[in-house]
Amino acid sequence: MIGIGVIGYGYWGPNLVRNFSDVPGCDVVAVADRRPERRSLVGRRHPSVRTTVEAADVIADPRVDAVVIATPVSSHYDLASAALAAGKHVWVEKPIALNALEASRLVDQADRAGLTLHVDHTFAYTTAVRKIRELVVSDALGQIYYYDSVRVNLGLFQHDVDVIWDLAVHDLSIIDYVLPEKPVAVSATGMAHVPGEPENIAYITLFFESSLIAHVHVNWLAPVKVRRTLIGGDRRMVVYDDLEPSEKVKVYDKGITMRPGDESTYQMRVGYRTGDMWAPQLDVTEALRTEGVHFLECIAQGTASLTDGRAGLRVVEILEAASRSMRERGRVIDLEARRCAA
Amino acid sequence: MIGIGVIGYGYWGPNLVRNFSDVPGCDVVAVADRRPERRSLVGRRHPSVRTTVEAADVIADPRVDAVVIATPVSSHYDLASAALAAGKHVWVEKPIALNALEASRLVDQADRAGLTLHVDHTFAYTTAVRKIRELVVSDALGQIYYYDSVRVNLGLFQHDVDVIWDLAVHDLSIIDYVLPEKPVAVSATGMAHVPGEPENIAYITLFFESSLIAHVHVNWLAPVKVRRTLIGGDRRMVVYDDLEPSEKVKVYDKGITMRPGDESTYQMRVGYRTGDMWAPQLDVTEALRTEGVHFLECIAQGTASLTDGRAGLRVVEILEAASRSMRERGRVIDLEARRCAA
Amino acid sequence: MIGIGVIGYGYWGPNLVRNFSDVPGCDVVAVADRRPERRSLVGRRHPSVRTTVEAADVIADPRVDAVVIATPVSSHYDLASAALAAGKHVWVEKPIALNALEASRLVDQADRAGLTLHVDHTFAYTTAVRKIRELVVSDALGQIYYYDSVRVNLGLFQHDVDVIWDLAVHDLSIIDYVLPEKPVAVSATGMAHVPGEPENIAYITLFFESSLIAHVHVNWLAPVKVRRTLIGGDRRMVVYDDLEPSEKVKVYDKGITMRPGDESTYQMRVGYRTGDMWAPQLDVTEALRTEGVHFLECIAQGTASLTDGRAGLRVVEILEAASRSMRERGRVIDLEARRCAA
Amino acid sequence: MIGIGVIGYGYWGPNLVRNFSDVPGCDVVAVADRRPERRSLVGRRHPSVRTTVEAADVIADPRVDAVVIATPVSSHYDLASAALAAGKHVWVEKPIALNALEASRLVDQADRAGLTLHVDHTFAYTTAVRKIRELVVSDALGQIYYYDSVRVNLGLFQHDVDVIWDLAVHDLSIIDYVLPEKPVAVSATGMAHVPGEPENIAYITLFFESSLIAHVHVNWLAPVKVRRTLIGGDRRMVVYDDLEPSEKVKVYDKGITMRPGDESTYQMRVGYRTGDMWAPQLDVTEALRTEGVHFLECIAQGTASLTDGRAGLRVVEILEAASRSMRERGRVIDLEARRCAA
Repeated sequence: MIGIGVIGYGYWGPNLVRNFSDVPGCDVVAVADRRPERRSLVGRRHPSVRTTVEAADVIADPRVDAVVIATPVSSHYDLASAALAAGKHVWVEKPIALNALEASRLVDQADRAGLTLHVDHTFAYTTAVRKIRELVVSDALGQIYYYDSVRVNLGLFQHDVDVIWDLAVHDLSIIDYVLPEKPVAVSATGMAHVPGEPENIAYITLFFESSLIAHVHVNWLAPVKVRRTLIGGDRRMVVYDDLEPSEKVKVYDKGITMRPGDESTYQMRVGYRTGDMWAPQLDVTEALRTEGVHFLECIAQGTASLTDGRAGLRVVEILEAASRSMRERGRVIDLEARRCAA
Repeated sequence: MIGIGVIGYGYWGPNLVRNFSDVPGCDVVAVADRRPERRSLVGRRHPSVRTTVEAADVIADPRVDAVVIATPVSSHYDLASAALAAGKHVWVEKPIALNALEASRLVDQADRAGLTLHVDHTFAYTTAVRKIRELVVSDALGQIYYYDSVRVNLGLFQHDVDVIWDLAVHDLSIIDYVLPEKPVAVSATGMAHVPGEPENIAYITLFFESSLIAHVHVNWLAPVKVRRTLIGGDRRMVVYDDLEPSEKVKVYDKGITMRPGDESTYQMRVGYRTGDMWAPQLDVTEALRTEGVHFLECIAQGTASLTDGRAGLRVVEILEAASRSMRERGRVIDLEARRCAA
Repeated sequence: MIGIGVIGYGYWGPNLVRNFSDVPGCDVVAVADRRPERRSLVGRRHPSVRTTVEAADVIADPRVDAVVIATPVSSHYDLASAALAAGKHVWVEKPIALNALEASRLVDQADRAGLTLHVDHTFAYTTAVRKIRELVVSDALGQIYYYDSVRVNLGLFQHDVDVIWDLAVHDLSIIDYVLPEKPVAVSATGMAHVPGEPENIAYITLFFESSLIAHVHVNWLAPVKVRRTLIGGDRRMVVYDDLEPSEKVKVYDKGITMRPGDESTYQMRVGYRTGDMWAPQLDVTEALRTEGVHFLECIAQGTASLTDGRAGLRVVEILEAASRSMRERGRVIDLEARRCAA
Repeated sequence: MIGIGVIGYGYWGPNLVRNFSDVPGCDVVAVADRRPERRSLVGRRHPSVRTTVEAADVIADPRVDAVVIATPVSSHYDLASAALAAGKHVWVEKPIALNALEASRLVDQADRAGLTLHVDHTFAYTTAVRKIRELVVSDALGQIYYYDSVRVNLGLFQHDVDVIWDLAVHDLSIIDYVLPEKPVAVSATGMAHVPGEPENIAYITLFFESSLIAHVHVNWLAPVKVRRTLIGGDRRMVVYDDLEPSEKVKVYDKGITMRPGDESTYQMRVGYRTGDMWAPQLDVTEALRTEGVHFLECIAQGTASLTDGRAGLRVVEILEAASRSMRERGRVIDLEARRCAA
């Protein structure tokens, strides 16, 4: 039985505590939060769980085998590092850390200690994203041409991170999981509309070795909520709409064909073909449960998590580069160069 | 009675001929097209209209007061210039010309000759776009924060121009008509997926003096057709979906508010407010008819068209800069500098 | 070459004239309409076609082999009967006649004369409805449980017929074409909201020998346009939405299963299973063209039209019974009894 | 502080317990359920609540002031009657009882005892339905012509009640709350497709004194989930879509106008006018909480609940009549006559 200690009982913490209470093979034994009303909420909901003010108490608790960190991103590095130093496995919310340097230190520290370091890239555990990955890996889509995501809504402005770190992190973790290549450069644009606040709208383009191109649009200030991704392959194309109650993933048997053009227009034409559309049935398993089970398996078997510290690092590298490019009005930032230099 | 001569009876020409046949105060007297089957189609549909092989015949026809040019963009400059030289008013399809130099020459030529030079930026004549402009001008939206357009579908690849020149031209002409400022810089990214063909997917960011930001996504290779624009103001926001059979324009009484944050989270919060949504009734007048009547009025009264050669030039300047930026992976191109230098 | 004469150039007539002009193997030679402005419209659009005031002139015209009747329903019987008497084949708009008696007389008359009598049940010629029929016939849906159609919009009130005759006629003709059984009884309810006008909202239930049940909801006074049909089989189910630009027909691999219930609730449970959804690609061939070609084939080969007078009669029998039931607040009317008595 | 005892902890019971735990002014003190695993679930979630096997224990518990009954409908009468006899206020799930006789006895019993008898017609407490009632009462819609509801999905078959009692009860309770008149007659059709099981598809028409007509379509065997109501008035019309995440209620400024017809068609025309559409902002308050607060107020002040036993009785009268009509293929059942006779 794995003992779980949770640090942070704000927006996401309750879901984590509830989820680990349900997952077989583990027990939530302690929760830390500085806010008394959050601790008393834990007490009412989970009377048998220890509540503490200090994160250090959770980390030091001998019944705690794995520390789950659900605090603002600025504290991720210190808490995760302390937990690893105490010999605890770590589950940390996304993004893993404030910058690539912190992230890579955590990766190294976990490696040296032989501990599981898992980043909560939840979407990688949804049945929709797993189906998409399956379609990519099985070559059902053919060569991937583009990945285009829109993730906008009217949402709370974050204070400490811009909209890229808050929203695009989801898309970048899906891209990291789903696409066959890693990006080599990034160009981003965006704008801050509220003085003193970070950028609330952003557009990110990712370049790859091949002609694959990815684009992410995130916005805290949209009148409607949109969660829609288009993926174009030379064989089939996908529309993934996360707000659809069912049929989240639609596969279109569409594409282009080369054909001789109308001579009178003196051009060769790229034609297109259209075929059936197909929406595969998706399980209704909750992603967080799948992810919790996976985390425990990684701990038990000593295997790397699907979304381990390295995945967290790759995502943070792009987040850093994208934010920088955005502040320089789209100047392309080479990701490979930075990796080589690192 | 204004005599109309039409050059080019391909995809759009038939609509123009039909429209000018219906608009009171003018008469279509001649149509030129090099393709015999297109000329014979004109003959069957409009037996009284003269058909010719050579555009020059239309331009030279003494009954023709205004020449309508609906040919590939590469021929726009030569045909429009010849028509103006012959003392004819000109209606030219968008974009006005292949580059800003050609466009500015046409503007100068029309100015000197005192002739009407009109560019067919059709969307500026739709009831939906006019309603949006009215909302902007009347300050119903407040300060405009962003303009975000998606215009994608599975479409025929153009041979001579990239997807920016084919599709984004619509958005740029709407932006030119609707927004209170002109862009000062552009950054674009995109990709060509078919060897030997132009870019088929592109993302364009426009920067302005203020914090306004505009973004256009165009794609010839999307599995679904999307024509959706989000416009965010500090007072209200708009969703404009051109594929909606009714309710194309929806106005959301939503926005942000500043409020003190939850102290325990140590931050000031940008809150948001949500209110009613409202879809104004839009006339069903066909845009092309409104535009045709406007063109005749400009000729009759010697006034500038709403979408005159200068508007066409402004759009082409951005198209040129966007294509260049795209080929340099998003390098920002300063539009003001270019204008000063010109 | 079959000579076509068209009677009535109102709402639908222009589509018929345009269509028969395009269909190979026939020629529109004459059009009758009492209204001078409609005749002059024919003149402008189709200079070579003879226009006349009197329908009788079209029927008598020796160049006319087939008469197309697109007039109000009250005149269908007289015109069709006169055309058949003159030895002409007949295409008549739906519904074929004002009552079953008239309809059966036309069927007899055409039979005796060996002429083609075709009713314009257009939907039977759409690719969507044909795909649905194919799914039914191939047993892809299994045993059909129900057919449920909603056909509502804000439309012009008809003066001479109620909403059942105006709108439900479409659904009844689709049902006649698609379903494996013919209805044996009908119960309908409805209401007239405008004094002196016919019923503008109606609900029709059709009963069959088996447990199949069909229901049609029609309404001239709805705030939104809906054209949606649900078809449930024990193997698969269909959603047919005629307003979808693409994917009009969606096939759901869903159904029920029998399983033992939760004992503590003391009941057997009918469970359900859900699977993939699939939207077959549909040709974009225009239905009217397919139907025109079929009509000419029937004439040439002397075969019965898919939607011949008998189909027209069956539909009118149900229309009559439904209107009567509606006026008696849902009293069930036995269709078989009426047929036997006839 | 009102003591609440809950009988039945199946599908809906957990929501009731959770809700009454949150509503100020009351305390859940006991929960009865025959199933040990349900009782142990209560124990884990609400350690301080007494759990019992027997409903009688809850009713007899002196700390219990109000009994909440969330058991199958067949037990509603006995349990509610016992609770009232014990001097307890009653909240009973819908429908109130298996037939009108039982329902009217409960009404009488509660009247005589001076106790609150409340039926959980939850929709009457949603912000959407309250907005619709406000639109009706304020005459914003004008005279109501029709009320049309579709409530279909792929759902578990009930064993003891047909689809009318399971699903249409929601619509009938909304109709009872929202419309200005009570129905005077009902005609229903439907079908059972699984041998030995009750009807799984049904269509109900309600007639009123005026020309108002209401129709409800319910179906346990639909491939898609639909929850859509159209309400037509002579001034405005409403579309209420309960599945819309926001904008559940849309008000259309549309209607009909009388105008002289086109003379050549020899008819008067009922025209129509179209105007803006408007979606009022709706609070996000949970209906169950509003309803819980209302229930406590009714107890405290001795006032009748908005959805009291009489409302429950009215709904059950229609359910009874509708089921009977359905079994007689739509025979109209007069509701007034039954009431007079009662």
